[in-house]
Amino acid sequence: MIRKLEAEGKTGDCLRSKCPVACTLDMLGDKWTLLVVRDLLLGKSTYSEFQQSPEGIPTNILAERLKRLQASGIVDRQLYQERPKRYRYRLTDKGSDLYPVLSAMIDWANRHVPGTVSRRRIEQLLGKARTAAR
Amino acid sequence: MIRKLEAEGKTGDCLRSKCPVACTLDMLGDKWTLLVVRDLLLGKSTYSEFQQSPEGIPTNILAERLKRLQASGIVDRQLYQERPKRYRYRLTDKGSDLYPVLSAMIDWANRHVPGTVSRRRIEQLLGKARTAAR
Repeated sequence: MIRKLEAEGKTGDCLRSKCPVACTLDMLGDKWTLLVVRDLLLGKSTYSEFQQSPEGIPTNILAERLKRLQASGIVDRQLYQERPKRYRYRLTDKGSDLYPVLSAMIDWANRHVPGTVSRRRIEQLLGKARTAAR
Repeated sequence: MIRKLEAEGKTGDCLRSKCPVACTLDMLGDKWTLLVVRDLLLGKSTYSEFQQSPEGIPTNILAERLKRLQASGIVDRQLYQERPKRYRYRLTDKGSDLYPVLSAMIDWANRHVPGTVSRRRIEQLLGKARTAAR
């Protein structure tokens, strides 16, 4: 039945049910994917920039998550160096629209998890990223 | 260093960095935990009710996630039957405050993932759950 619906293009990224939370988690429900989205929102765009983030994403996980994010239409990439091939990654509109999800997580953690970086500080960093992107 | 901070109660649930998104994902970043939170928001409270959800959470995962949610102070439980022991689970205030995270996921999936259940339908279900809880 799931195969039939997928063939008709009706489920797409929904693997387990039609619940929008479940469908979102089918794509983004792990410890790393939304950190790559966070880095992209903060203006990072290259493989080595993602690897420099403080959580230290393992290189094989980063490669796999970037592929999955492209397959889901959340990220696209552009070749910027031919030898060796290097790509710049950026969020599509579908990817940028994930900001409210991250924003809600920021508010929740600021309220309930002591010692997390404040929303104000994060908005300063976002502002810098937007200015740099212009 | 992390051990020292934990002993001081300063990092608590933050395992990888002080980024609020990373700290949230340390607790909730997987395919199942937020579905249990969703079920609790929708008024489900027992083990067998969680298992009846359409995603079919495996019993060992459900048991482990409920333990972790209790350890994080997101869920608490109440004994309602002595032999065999059975518990009712419910969200704490910290857990109920996750609603905006789920709400943002609902909006994102409704916009970008074809065929997901609409926010309006989900709000009807939430309304019923709240009326029933009174």
